[in-house]
Formats: sequence, C-alpha cells, structure tokens
Amino acid sequence: MISSVLLGLLGVAGLASARNGTNPHDKTDLYAGRPVAHLTPPEGWMNDPNGLWYDEKEDLYHAYFQYNPNGTVWALPLYWGHSVSSDLTNWLYQGIAIAPERDDSGAYSGSAVVDYNNTSGFFNDSVDPRQRVVAMWTYNTPEKETQYVSYSVDGGNTFISYENNPVLDINSTQYRDPKVIWHEESNKWILTVAHSQKYEILIYSSPNLKDWKLESSFGDQGYLGYQYECPGLAKVPVVEGENGLTLSNLTSNNTSVNNYFNSSASSNGKVKEAWVLFISINPGAPQGGSATQYFIGDFNGTHFVPFTTQTRFIDMGKDYYALQCFFNSRNKNDVLSIAWASNWQYGSLVPTDGWRSSMSLVRNLTLKEWAPNPESVQLNLNSEPILNMKPSKAKNASTELTDVLLTTKDSISANFAPRMNTGVYDFEIVWSVNKNAFNNSRLNEWTLYIDSQDYYAEYLALGYDTTAGAFYIDRGNSYNDFVSLNPFFNNRESISLEPYSTSTNGTNTYKVYGVIDQNIVELYFNDGSIVSTNLFFFSDHNQIRGFETYTNVDGGFKFDSFKFHVLNF
Amino acid sequence: MISSVLLGLLGVAGLASARNGTNPHDKTDLYAGRPVAHLTPPEGWMNDPNGLWYDEKEDLYHAYFQYNPNGTVWALPLYWGHSVSSDLTNWLYQGIAIAPERDDSGAYSGSAVVDYNNTSGFFNDSVDPRQRVVAMWTYNTPEKETQYVSYSVDGGNTFISYENNPVLDINSTQYRDPKVIWHEESNKWILTVAHSQKYEILIYSSPNLKDWKLESSFGDQGYLGYQYECPGLAKVPVVEGENGLTLSNLTSNNTSVNNYFNSSASSNGKVKEAWVLFISINPGAPQGGSATQYFIGDFNGTHFVPFTTQTRFIDMGKDYYALQCFFNSRNKNDVLSIAWASNWQYGSLVPTDGWRSSMSLVRNLTLKEWAPNPESVQLNLNSEPILNMKPSKAKNASTELTDVLLTTKDSISANFAPRMNTGVYDFEIVWSVNKNAFNNSRLNEWTLYIDSQDYYAEYLALGYDTTAGAFYIDRGNSYNDFVSLNPFFNNRESISLEPYSTSTNGTNTYKVYGVIDQNIVELYFNDGSIVSTNLFFFSDHNQIRGFETYTNVDGGFKFDSFKFHVLNF
Repeated sequence: MISSVLLGLLGVAGLASARNGTNPHDKTDLYAGRPVAHLTPPEGWMNDPNGLWYDEKEDLYHAYFQYNPNGTVWALPLYWGHSVSSDLTNWLYQGIAIAPERDDSGAYSGSAVVDYNNTSGFFNDSVDPRQRVVAMWTYNTPEKETQYVSYSVDGGNTFISYENNPVLDINSTQYRDPKVIWHEESNKWILTVAHSQKYEILIYSSPNLKDWKLESSFGDQGYLGYQYECPGLAKVPVVEGENGLTLSNLTSNNTSVNNYFNSSASSNGKVKEAWVLFISINPGAPQGGSATQYFIGDFNGTHFVPFTTQTRFIDMGKDYYALQCFFNSRNKNDVLSIAWASNWQYGSLVPTDGWRSSMSLVRNLTLKEWAPNPESVQLNLNSEPILNMKPSKAKNASTELTDVLLTTKDSISANFAPRMNTGVYDFEIVWSVNKNAFNNSRLNEWTLYIDSQDYYAEYLALGYDTTAGAFYIDRGNSYNDFVSLNPFFNNRESISLEPYSTSTNGTNTYKVYGVIDQNIVELYFNDGSIVSTNLFFFSDHNQIRGFETYTNVDGGFKFDSFKFHVLNF
Repeated sequence: MISSVLLGLLGVAGLASARNGTNPHDKTDLYAGRPVAHLTPPEGWMNDPNGLWYDEKEDLYHAYFQYNPNGTVWALPLYWGHSVSSDLTNWLYQGIAIAPERDDSGAYSGSAVVDYNNTSGFFNDSVDPRQRVVAMWTYNTPEKETQYVSYSVDGGNTFISYENNPVLDINSTQYRDPKVIWHEESNKWILTVAHSQKYEILIYSSPNLKDWKLESSFGDQGYLGYQYECPGLAKVPVVEGENGLTLSNLTSNNTSVNNYFNSSASSNGKVKEAWVLFISINPGAPQGGSATQYFIGDFNGTHFVPFTTQTRFIDMGKDYYALQCFFNSRNKNDVLSIAWASNWQYGSLVPTDGWRSSMSLVRNLTLKEWAPNPESVQLNLNSEPILNMKPSKAKNASTELTDVLLTTKDSISANFAPRMNTGVYDFEIVWSVNKNAFNNSRLNEWTLYIDSQDYYAEYLALGYDTTAGAFYIDRGNSYNDFVSLNPFFNNRESISLEPYSTSTNGTNTYKVYGVIDQNIVELYFNDGSIVSTNLFFFSDHNQIRGFETYTNVDGGFKFDSFKFHVLNF
C-alpha cells in the first residue's frame, strides 16, 4: 500500500512521473479481456470520471478518475488517477494527479477548467494560457465534505492545492462533486454541486474560481433515488432531426419554454442550443442501482429552468453513471462526455483481474427533435460514440449485407480465427418489419447471438420482438460465477423503440449501432436517440467465437443492412 | 367464439346469468397453480381492472376487467368481465357486464360510480340509491376512441348504454380510460381521461355524468414512456409515520405546497389528506414495459397541482399496471386499489393454462411521511395488502422465530407435505444488520429460498445484501421454458431500501412482508413504503416444497423476527 502521508512529503509529482508512460493497452491486452477502446485503470479500482478537459496547446484530451491504486475495490485513501488521449480511443495512463491529505480521506470527484485569462491569479506567464488548468474537487474526510481548488503548472500532470482551501464548506458530510463551467453570457464561472441527500443541486457563480456566491438551487425533480450525485450543466447545440419535424411542433404549456423558443437562442422557430443539467442518482434508480438522468431547459446565469419536468435517463442500460462533460474540445461545438461504465450494485465484484471498471466510450452530445410516438415531438439528448478503430482486413473479419429477408431456415453468421479476434467489434443493423407476418400469441423476434469461444451455451443475445415492441439484451447466458450468482447482475433489459423511419406504405424501420469491447456492449438506437450500456462476462476473458442471427418468423423481418466488423487500430 | 352480434341481440344479461356462480376458486384450484387470493378470469384473457365500486346495500365489492373470453391473448371483441367479493380475497365470477357493439371493437377500460342522488336521471325509485351504478368506459373502434356511459339497474351485473353515447368524442384514436370520482367540495363529478400519445391527462367536470366540461390538462410530467394510460385521481388520507417525523419537516420551495400546508386541509402543521394522480405508462417504463406512477398534490376541482414534480412508481416490480381505485369502500377512509399483475412485454405469453393474468391483491393506500435517506422527509404513498386468509393449522405449516443470529452453518427451513401445501404463503422478516461483520469486497447477504417441489435447482430467491444496500428478487432459477426463453422476463430486480428503524447504537433494522400466491409474489417493505410485485414460474404449476434461509456472513444479520406461514381460508 502506498502511504499517502509519504506522497504528501514527496509531492505527487514523483509517483506520477514514475508511472508516466505505462500503457495498459499494449498489444497483449487486445486478447486478454481488458477493454481497449474504453479507459481503464492500469491496476486497482476506478469509479467516476473527473476533471475532463481538452489541452488546446498539445491537442490532447485529459481524463482523471476516482482511483484506488492499492486494491480492486473502492477504499480510502482515494486519488485522482490521470490518463490522456489524442484520439479519445487510446488512453495512456499518466499517474496520480491529486492525492488526499490523509489516509482516512479522499480526493473525491470534481472537474477541471482552463483559466485562460488567469482569473484565479494562480498562474504567471510561464504557463501557456491554454494549459492553465484548475481543478475543483471534493475533499472528503470522516468529518465533512468541502470543496477544494487545485491548479496545475505542468499541463495537468500534478496539482497544487490552493492555500485557502476549502473554498466552500457548508458543514455537511453530503456535499460533493463540483462541476465548473465558463458562462460566457455573464462572464462568470458557474459551479453546480450536489447537496446530495437534500436532493438539491446548488448553483454558484464566481469571477475567480475562489470566491463563490450561491445563486440558486434546483431540486426535488426527476427521479430522486437515494441521493443526487455528479451534477453538471452543459450548453448543447440543437441539430435538426432527420424526420422532417420542426421545433415549432414542440408542444408545451410551459410559459418559460415558449419564452425561450421566442428568445435570442432561437431563430425562425428553430432553437439553436439549450442547456442540459445532468444529475446522477445512486442507489435507487428504477433500473436498479445507479443511473444518470438529465433535464433540458434554459440557464440564465443564475437559475436553471427545465422546459418540462419529465424524468429522462441518458442511457437505459445498467452500467452508465456519473456522466461528466469535457471542458472544451477540438471541435468547438462538440459536447464530449464520459461516464463510469459500471453500477454501484456490483461494480466492486465484477470478475476482472487486477483492475476494476471501465469508462464508457466518449460520446458527443446533441439535442434533436424526437418522436417517441406518432403524436408527440420532444427535444431529446442524442449520443454519438467516438471510436477511432477500423475494420480488420483479415479474411472473414467483415460481414456486410443488404436486403436480407430473414427466414427460420437461414442465418447470417461468421466465425473468427483466434488471432484476428481482437475483442473489439462493431455492428450496424437496419431492419424493417412486415406487420402481416406476426402473431401476437408468440414471440416475433430476430436475435443476434454473440457466441463465446468456450461454450456453446454461452452467448450474449441482442434482438427485437414485435409483440413487446422492444429491443432486448440478454447477458445471462454465461458460466461465469459472477453472472450466475450476483443477485444484482440482472440478465435481461429492454429498450422501447420508436421507428427510425416509416415508409409511405407504413413499414417501420429501426436501426441499432453496437460496439463490443471485451466485456462492454454499447448500443446506440436510431443514431443515438436511445442508448444502452451494459457489462457482460463469459467464463473466460470474453473470448468471442463469432456471431449468428436467428428469427422465428418467416418473412417478418428484413435486414435492409447488416454490418459486423472485427475492429483493429 | 362467442358472436358479439348475437350477444347484442340477446342482450348481455343472458350470458351473464348463465355464467353466474362459476367460481374459479373451487378447492381443486388450491393445488393447481391458479392464484386463489388474486382475481383471475375463469378462462380466457384479462387485463386492466375496470369499474371498481363498493355496493353499500349488499356489502359487496365489484371488480370488472378487460376480458377476452374467446382466447388467452388480448383480442377484439373485448368485454368487461365481472367478479364480486365480500372479503376482497375470494372473488366470484359473475359473467360479462359490458359487450362492444361490433366484433372489431372493444369495451375498453373505464370506471364506475354510484349515482346516489340520480344526478344522471338514469334511475327511478325501483333502484336502491346505493346500487345506482354508472359506468364510463372507452368505446374503441378502428376509427376512434370515444367515451361511453352505461348504467345498471340490476346491481351491476348488466349495463344499459346511454342513448346519446358517446358523451365525449375528440376525434382521436388515442383517448381512453375514463376514471370518474365524486368531488364533494365542488359538488361535481370529476373525470380524468388519457390523451395518451400527447402525454396529457384531461380533467373534466360534470353535474350529471352526461355533459362534461374540460377544466384543465396535466401532462409532460413524470416518466413519459411511449404513452400515458389509466389515469385516476384519489383523495388519500395522510397518516403519521412511525418514526416520529412531523410534516413540518417537509421541505419544499414550491409556493403552492406551502400554501396547501397552511390551508384547511391541514391543522397544526399536519396535513390530513392530499390528492394523488395515478398515471400508467406502457411501453417504455424504465423497469421495462409497463408501470404505474403517481403524483402527490392538490386538486381544487379544476386543476391538479403536484407538490413536487418528482417521478415515483407505486410498485417497483415488473408486474403492476393500470392501477385503479374503488369508488367507495366499507370503511369510508380506505382507498382501495387493484392493479393488473402482469406486464405487456410478456403478459400474453405467460405459461398458464386456459386463462391468463391475475390482478394484484387489493391494497389500501395511505400517505405517510417517509425518510428515503437520513437528510430528507417526503410524503410517500403507502400500500397495505388485504388478504383474508389465515395460517394453516397443519403440523409444520407455521414457522415463527425471534432473535435468530444468522450463521453460515445454520439455516431456518421447512418442508411442506403436499396436501398442506395450498400454494398460498405469507412471511414477515424483520432483520437487523451488524455493520462490523461486513466486507465490501464480497456480497454480504442473507437469502430466503422458496424451493420448487420438482427440482433442486428451481427456486425463487429473495434476499438482502449490504454491499448494494438493496433487497433483491431472483425469479430466474427455473426450468420453465417461458422463464428460460422469453427475452423480457428478466430474472433479477432490486429494491433500494431505507431502514425501517435505527436504534440508538446505530443498528439499522429492515422489514419485509411477502405474500406468495401460486405464481405471484408481492413484497411489502417497511409496512408498505415500497412494494414490488412479480410473477414467477416453476416448471410445474409452481408447487413449492418448502423454504430455507442462507447467509454468507457469520453474525452479520439477526432476524429479530421470522415468520413463515402456509395459508388457508
């Protein structure tokens, strides 16, 4: 065990430097069950993403994370680990960036900003304005949780604690996860922080990142669960939907919404951007355990007002928590986000070896019009994954077909030779349904089986059924003891799906894009209007033999397009 | 197949009379896999509860239900089936009460009221005021959905259609499930009906049940799913919590809430009653498929205003939909409710023989203070089951123990001889946890296994784990093909649990009361603050051999009280 007292004496830089360059994603990992396109810790335990920022000078993305390097379960002392990536797919571990002051304490979750104009006064000319990174995080001790500010003069590798910390202390043990953004319109820093068990998100403003003024609170909204965690505000561009709907169709009795749609943020009835407030809840999400919800609305520099008070989850899967958005990005309009791809119900028990937890893929967020049913139009948060890998050129590594009418006798399948089997795959299926073929007294389904290398009865099943009108995922067919025995690792989940498009003759078409990276499957429906992220585990390192499709309805489904690729760098 | 044209000619009374007295709960059913304390159809398909009312003259409860007597899946024509009960546990089928006019149409869901004062003019003195029952329901045709009014002059067995039907027609195919209540304060009938795919609950008032005036709409709130269904308003008494909290602790920034708490509905800071609006959603509930949510607030005769805009589900299980409250009850303060104990994702495929679907137990609803975490107090809808059965006097049919410290070596168990095994059981477990015994790098659980008669590996598992801080149910350990193969019948669910009480030394105590009736398990936590209802299926009629307990932590859990009973009438 690393003594955090010793770390304090040596400074954190020494340790970070010693670990610098350790890449958990060397080639052996391509075949060893550790995700390669998802950020993982080199060893030990990881949870929430922290301090996400983009270094404009180096063209480099920084991701920190809640980190216990001394064991594979959450435990104090808790650190900020640090990884970087230039392509948002390959992550390189850099070492520990922030350490707590005591062994019984933690450098809990928080965020980072680039203080270009040195509003904080922490920097002198030796630090490039584009690297003037300031982190705000929760210092957790048995006595209370307070908000700390730290700054880095070495491009984000190590941080120096502000001498007058804490900058915020309300004498509470449940006050955490500060997320800071720059609010251009009011020329101020804006902070959201959770007063967790009061179900309040406190909103503060500051000119200098040190002195914070409480402006408002937002709370008692959405799904409460046990407590609120990891809030965050982001201004998200509204891009047009692809189904010809216009925002003028958006119905609402809410005056503030109508005002907003008539304000400067919109033109010609088209809203250009809106604010999104993220709130994670844990435990007690309706799906079980932890989940990330969001609200769409307006933020005027002091108050966040949602357009509607409906509850929405950004990802319907079981393994997507504590979403945070990057401060800045290469493309200025991108709103890049990362979440912890696990669940507090079983995160400390998943069967990985020497390390635990992955982050989600980085996702670019936009707001789009969305028709959940034929009579409604909503604004919806849309997620687009970033994955810089390409189809392997090995023989049989790619299957690409169009216009396949599914029958009970035929199937699409592929087998992967062991060394072409990197453990990373993507697939895209566009399917249309022939209503006349179905009978509601049975299942009417197509299924894609992702088969384990080791056992015939071990597979991940993904599919769609017209009787339920939903897509499903079944991760329960495994001989892995964790899957069999953990009472919170549920097998089946479902996603109610609106059509991607409807043809003039009434045929509905749907679309799913999936990424499998060793033990994670991320599903993006209809270009990201709905997402589901789930872990799955086979008996041995999730080695995949191949895939096969199935249907029980002759002529009920057509794959307008079917693509399945083994991916490589 | 029964011709609904013929029914129209004969009148419905003939059929109803012919079936009158058919009791699906004769003694053979006690051992045949059909629930006995839950309402089921005599044969065919059942879904939503309809027209629930209490006959004060006969001291009899009436429950109608969406009914297809011609098959075991949902299909048109759809009828109102009718059952009665004097104890809310034994239900006697009465026949078909309302039939649709055409074979391609349905008498869809609706409600019933007793028009004591003959505001409708439907009745003369020959009908006892206590039996002047008027039903309002949705007539569904391929063209549209409209609201019909029917009345009964024979105590609710058959209904006569009002000559000027429909009473409401907005030219929509998505406009259904009228629920009528009497609003004493404004001396009017109040109707809530779903404009389903607009996510609107329309609220109307009427002096006579025929002429309806639109007063307001409530919508875009809670969890939207695909559509809203089965709305309902109920005035629910607020009873004190048992943990010493007072309602003055209820925090809210909402002016209307504060006004309400200062109004005549409260005294000494204690609210006496509040209004609850129920809205069911299907598909697209976060738990998968269908679910019932509710809002607590004030209703002034025209508008419903929720105290908070949070999303709440009345039952966290997978099988609880379309809740409806009774019009009147034996005890005037009771708010009795029934829901459909299934899920549209798989309701038409569950492995029952000749009949499909059960209702939930009848539950009495109250509002109670509730502390979801140590820093918050909320008003919460509390469910208390009504079950008029008693422990069997057979040898070994009851286990009652107190102060059992659980160890890895011992277990509590019982085996039931086949003929004492009625298929109906209840159990109550009060357990306390010793935090010092736990280790977060493993599960820390106790489990109650309900064992199948037929296979060792077939069981229902219920338990609690401190690592997740949640109760779980696992219904996946079965050789029943439906359980193995249906992709929406998930195995595991979890319930995040607040302590029932906390002792001065910090020991947390929890409580669960469970009812098992053949293939349904209903779990009531902490006297009903949280409820979870789920179907489960073994390979053969859910015959239960016995139960056994298990823990993996020596001295971690104490059963302050453990009771398990085989029940009988």
